[in-house]
Amino acid sequence: MKNFMDKDFILESETAKILFHNYADKMPIVDYHCHLSPKEIWEDRRFNNITEVWLGGDHYKWRLMRANGVDERFITGDAPAKEKFFKFAETLEKCIGNPVHQWSHLELRRYFGYAGALNSKTAEEVWNLCNQQLALPEFSARGIMEMSNVKLVCTTDDPVDSLEYHEKIKADESFKIKVLPAWRPDKIVNIEKPEFADYVNKLAEAADTEIVCIKCVKRALKARMDFFAGHGCNVADHGIEYAPYEPCSEEEASGIFKKAYAKEELTAKEIAQYKTYMLRFFGEEYSARGWAMQLHYGCKRNNNGFMYKQLGPDTGYDCILNGAPGPQLADFLDSLATENKLPRTIIYSLDPNDNAVIETIMGCFQNSDAIGKLQHGSAWWFNDHRDGMEAQMKSLANEGVLGNFIGMLTDSRSFLSYPRHEYFRRIMCNLIAGFVEKGEYPWDEEVLGRMVQDISYNNAVRYFGFDI
Amino acid sequence: MKNFMDKDFILESETAKILFHNYADKMPIVDYHCHLSPKEIWEDRRFNNITEVWLGGDHYKWRLMRANGVDERFITGDAPAKEKFFKFAETLEKCIGNPVHQWSHLELRRYFGYAGALNSKTAEEVWNLCNQQLALPEFSARGIMEMSNVKLVCTTDDPVDSLEYHEKIKADESFKIKVLPAWRPDKIVNIEKPEFADYVNKLAEAADTEIVCIKCVKRALKARMDFFAGHGCNVADHGIEYAPYEPCSEEEASGIFKKAYAKEELTAKEIAQYKTYMLRFFGEEYSARGWAMQLHYGCKRNNNGFMYKQLGPDTGYDCILNGAPGPQLADFLDSLATENKLPRTIIYSLDPNDNAVIETIMGCFQNSDAIGKLQHGSAWWFNDHRDGMEAQMKSLANEGVLGNFIGMLTDSRSFLSYPRHEYFRRIMCNLIAGFVEKGEYPWDEEVLGRMVQDISYNNAVRYFGFDI
Amino acid sequence: MKNFMDKDFILESETAKILFHNYADKMPIVDYHCHLSPKEIWEDRRFNNITEVWLGGDHYKWRLMRANGVDERFITGDAPAKEKFFKFAETLEKCIGNPVHQWSHLELRRYFGYAGALNSKTAEEVWNLCNQQLALPEFSARGIMEMSNVKLVCTTDDPVDSLEYHEKIKADESFKIKVLPAWRPDKIVNIEKPEFADYVNKLAEAADTEIVCIKCVKRALKARMDFFAGHGCNVADHGIEYAPYEPCSEEEASGIFKKAYAKEELTAKEIAQYKTYMLRFFGEEYSARGWAMQLHYGCKRNNNGFMYKQLGPDTGYDCILNGAPGPQLADFLDSLATENKLPRTIIYSLDPNDNAVIETIMGCFQNSDAIGKLQHGSAWWFNDHRDGMEAQMKSLANEGVLGNFIGMLTDSRSFLSYPRHEYFRRIMCNLIAGFVEKGEYPWDEEVLGRMVQDISYNNAVRYFGFDI
Repeated sequence: MKNFMDKDFILESETAKILFHNYADKMPIVDYHCHLSPKEIWEDRRFNNITEVWLGGDHYKWRLMRANGVDERFITGDAPAKEKFFKFAETLEKCIGNPVHQWSHLELRRYFGYAGALNSKTAEEVWNLCNQQLALPEFSARGIMEMSNVKLVCTTDDPVDSLEYHEKIKADESFKIKVLPAWRPDKIVNIEKPEFADYVNKLAEAADTEIVCIKCVKRALKARMDFFAGHGCNVADHGIEYAPYEPCSEEEASGIFKKAYAKEELTAKEIAQYKTYMLRFFGEEYSARGWAMQLHYGCKRNNNGFMYKQLGPDTGYDCILNGAPGPQLADFLDSLATENKLPRTIIYSLDPNDNAVIETIMGCFQNSDAIGKLQHGSAWWFNDHRDGMEAQMKSLANEGVLGNFIGMLTDSRSFLSYPRHEYFRRIMCNLIAGFVEKGEYPWDEEVLGRMVQDISYNNAVRYFGFDI
Repeated sequence: MKNFMDKDFILESETAKILFHNYADKMPIVDYHCHLSPKEIWEDRRFNNITEVWLGGDHYKWRLMRANGVDERFITGDAPAKEKFFKFAETLEKCIGNPVHQWSHLELRRYFGYAGALNSKTAEEVWNLCNQQLALPEFSARGIMEMSNVKLVCTTDDPVDSLEYHEKIKADESFKIKVLPAWRPDKIVNIEKPEFADYVNKLAEAADTEIVCIKCVKRALKARMDFFAGHGCNVADHGIEYAPYEPCSEEEASGIFKKAYAKEELTAKEIAQYKTYMLRFFGEEYSARGWAMQLHYGCKRNNNGFMYKQLGPDTGYDCILNGAPGPQLADFLDSLATENKLPRTIIYSLDPNDNAVIETIMGCFQNSDAIGKLQHGSAWWFNDHRDGMEAQMKSLANEGVLGNFIGMLTDSRSFLSYPRHEYFRRIMCNLIAGFVEKGEYPWDEEVLGRMVQDISYNNAVRYFGFDI
Repeated sequence: MKNFMDKDFILESETAKILFHNYADKMPIVDYHCHLSPKEIWEDRRFNNITEVWLGGDHYKWRLMRANGVDERFITGDAPAKEKFFKFAETLEKCIGNPVHQWSHLELRRYFGYAGALNSKTAEEVWNLCNQQLALPEFSARGIMEMSNVKLVCTTDDPVDSLEYHEKIKADESFKIKVLPAWRPDKIVNIEKPEFADYVNKLAEAADTEIVCIKCVKRALKARMDFFAGHGCNVADHGIEYAPYEPCSEEEASGIFKKAYAKEELTAKEIAQYKTYMLRFFGEEYSARGWAMQLHYGCKRNNNGFMYKQLGPDTGYDCILNGAPGPQLADFLDSLATENKLPRTIIYSLDPNDNAVIETIMGCFQNSDAIGKLQHGSAWWFNDHRDGMEAQMKSLANEGVLGNFIGMLTDSRSFLSYPRHEYFRRIMCNLIAGFVEKGEYPWDEEVLGRMVQDISYNNAVRYFGFDI
């Protein structure tokens, strides 16, 4: 029996231990996709207690508590912080095998020096320990990032964002970690949403222009892309139900835009046409600018109408949207590739059944533009656990070149989530060591050590061209 | 090499052995979903030979024999019982890795004390041994249930059923095992079937009412639900192709009902509307009555027209129906949750690709109404094997609270199938021990022992509120 | 740590070693589905260097090189052979866990006696070694087949093919390996393709008849099937997007045919109707002739328009087509089974999510016509790796009779690909041994030795009725 989450956690062989401890673990972190608040980084936010850090906005934990029958008062409600923490501790005890159980204990070990298990018996001890530490000067937002050996993060930003806090952070020479904006223009793509027309107005204002047609939309977006590029942005991200492919002309797209802006009802086909048009436009722009494009698909959001009214989005009521049509993804990518306008692209699906489909579609568009031009993004959200990461990397190994994988990102809202990089690296080293242990790849410490360092850090830095 | 199916079968670590032998194995059985015949329980049916028990109605075994090229005469035909058994023994020998191979040997061990392997060489010996034992007084239907440490079973019953045998069983104080009816109203939901109109008439008769509109249908069903509740029923079950969500008004539903009752053709949309309407009606009723709702979906039945004409349904010609739309399931559940009328719900899909989808949909509707209000049912039918159960439980662990799982059910027509609970418990203990062995969860015998007992028995008793 | 790909490669237990070395490895090879060129066999083609053999037409390797950012010049372009090989060696080093890494090293071991690892450091040594050997007399196409212990191969042939080279090979008594044609009539099924009408003309010419209606199409095809049968063909193969089921009358099919022949546009429904009609026709013919029918589905081809224009088909731009409708496959098979006209059928899907669906559909059509009449084909193409083969065989074990599996085929264009049979056998023996090691099946060397020999060779010979 292995000790509970000790230094060799997940590392099942000597090979795995060598690769992790001597190579992967020494690498810094570049977190190329996260949801940290630039404002909180700028303000160097502090936390009053562990409930604030852990349960303030973490819908992973909220879902577990609800699945344990905990009253919402102790989750997002007005119960005292300590009571909430105790309810969480009780819940966690029953979450054997859940990544939140492992993430939480990694955070307790790395940040708070707690080597035990959090459960109903130890909740008081852990509560006190964590809160004492959180009161120390180094436990500010920036302090936590620094002690985590982070070199660079990309936040997730709306095209209309002023990037005010990015500017302030950049201007502060005392803070060495790079904080770059990433471009997430979902609101101008989601033409079917009731808030679309209002958003168009905001975009017009941000770009200091008038928007009355699709040409104006594109002009405004280009202006904002220029602005983002001026702030160091070279990564874009799209959250879509699935990659659509329903081509239409600019004239048609403009007609659809005008209908939506006038708040007229659109057909399903029109929505797909507009989205295809816009995603192609973005792809071309990214290609011309040398940006990388992330596509996150396969998510159905806000499924509980009752709770949505009370809590709004991102509160733990999302699920996998299955059945995403692979053929449309292939045709969408081809429509760009055919004109030599396909940017470096990273594909994530929330449906784990899509792993092999994604790998084989990617394989159709690789070329000498970049090493690993098309990437299958690391196991995302509901798949961000040991089984999910192993499945994603095995799939990548079986269909492509694992050595070129750009690796982990947190996708997180929390300053304490960097141990997920460690978790990923342990799993990755263990998997790679497994190929060696099974005699499927020769033991060559130099080659393998470099490979795990590349996947941990170097590949991402090279792929995005980050200047670190 | 482990011995063939000895006492430590499936238990790969000391931890697994402790958890199974000292905790899980000691728990009684509550089988909350099965297809036993109440009449056979009442009559305390006896069996003339092992062919009668094993091959009399077990389409799992029939399918294997057909896949081995055995003539139908030796399967469902008029060949002598002993010859059928020998054909089965020959087949079984080639079924390495098949759950029927393991179930059969568990039954031979637990009921007949046979520790060897059944194959063409041992068929004679096993035939004689089993038949000798079956002649003993304790080998009646009730006797087998008693020796299996069963406390309660829920059968599967049609709304028009008189529950006559349930009444008789309940009145017989010599039989201590609770036998409760469960409500399975598929025939009133399946409006597209040719027998629908006839069934409506039967329902009218059973409820002693007239049915001419959707309101009458609901009134009749409520009367029958009252009747079932009066016989201790608090579990419902639906066998559906997939969970539909095509809402319509009561007036529309009534119009569709009338068309079908008049044997007019319905459109696909009308069928989906009626089904959605009825399933929502049932969900509301179950919620009001405190019943649990089971949804079994993803099955395509009676695929071999030639054999269907000869043998009818449930004879081994069903398959997985892939492509069930997760979004409709989410929307269906939300339509109830939004009005606070979602009952405790257990979801089973026959398509193993749906595991993660189900987990993440469930997570959107958990709340403090119950611990683990939404449940992902144990691996069903074609997934009821070691790989399938491990996949279902890993999925549950990764996305939810494994400790709250209500565990196993046989779904079986056979009185000898209770070792499947043992099989499940071995797999479950081995999986949970695996988390500990790998250092992902701390060793704590008290916590873990209670957890495996809860999943084996206590959680189901609490979840359904069974009075045992 | 196991040594890198030594004699016990993949064999994780003593049981596995016994089963492989003493039983499976001794069996000859029957390769019932491949894409070898009969012309090259007849001409006994020779190879100037390892680049010609390995990189001349192998799109698996091309895809990996592209994913490594290698310029197309070094892949399919005009770079010198040696430079191409070096680029491949550099790429391979990063392909940890990829089947091409393992296949390549198996080929180096079995054909060239190289026990090391191919990488950028050893590329020169391997280049020289392989080229020296390729110059030896025995390294001709036929020589390689003979040293691989091949007894029979089925090539893949168009109905209009003259089978000229098959005749020549057969007439050459010095060559003992049977080379049979297999019938692949995709071009007459793919009515939506622009080249359809031209193909009809070619078919008319080959059958020496006139084709103006669906009856004529069938008459011509029957004539060609007679011709193929006369050359020993008894296996057919269909590459389809998915198995359709949209029945229509002969008259309707003929109308659709005439429209297509006149180059008029067809609706999606008409295309599905024609394909259903033709596949049913073929099924009936195969049944009457005692041919086996292979269905390969779930592939989307030629996804990169830009590269397609330069390189044409089969150059590494295909992907998995997900979402194949299982219900239509079931209904299609039933439409034949109902009339007792379903031939022995082997089903392959490129989507690994289809494994369980295929198993359970197959189970609905098994009968005493043959042992294992319906077969789930060995893991195909993008699934042809250890994980894919294990998944396919576990699925088969869980739902059917693993002992009746007809096993491996190369599906390859390369004369060096026979070690994939060895690779399969190692995986299969290891899996079967695993059931024994885990105590799920008793150790019985006679039974298990025969089982692995059957799956390696005997089952296929019996299933196809090959006269060897």
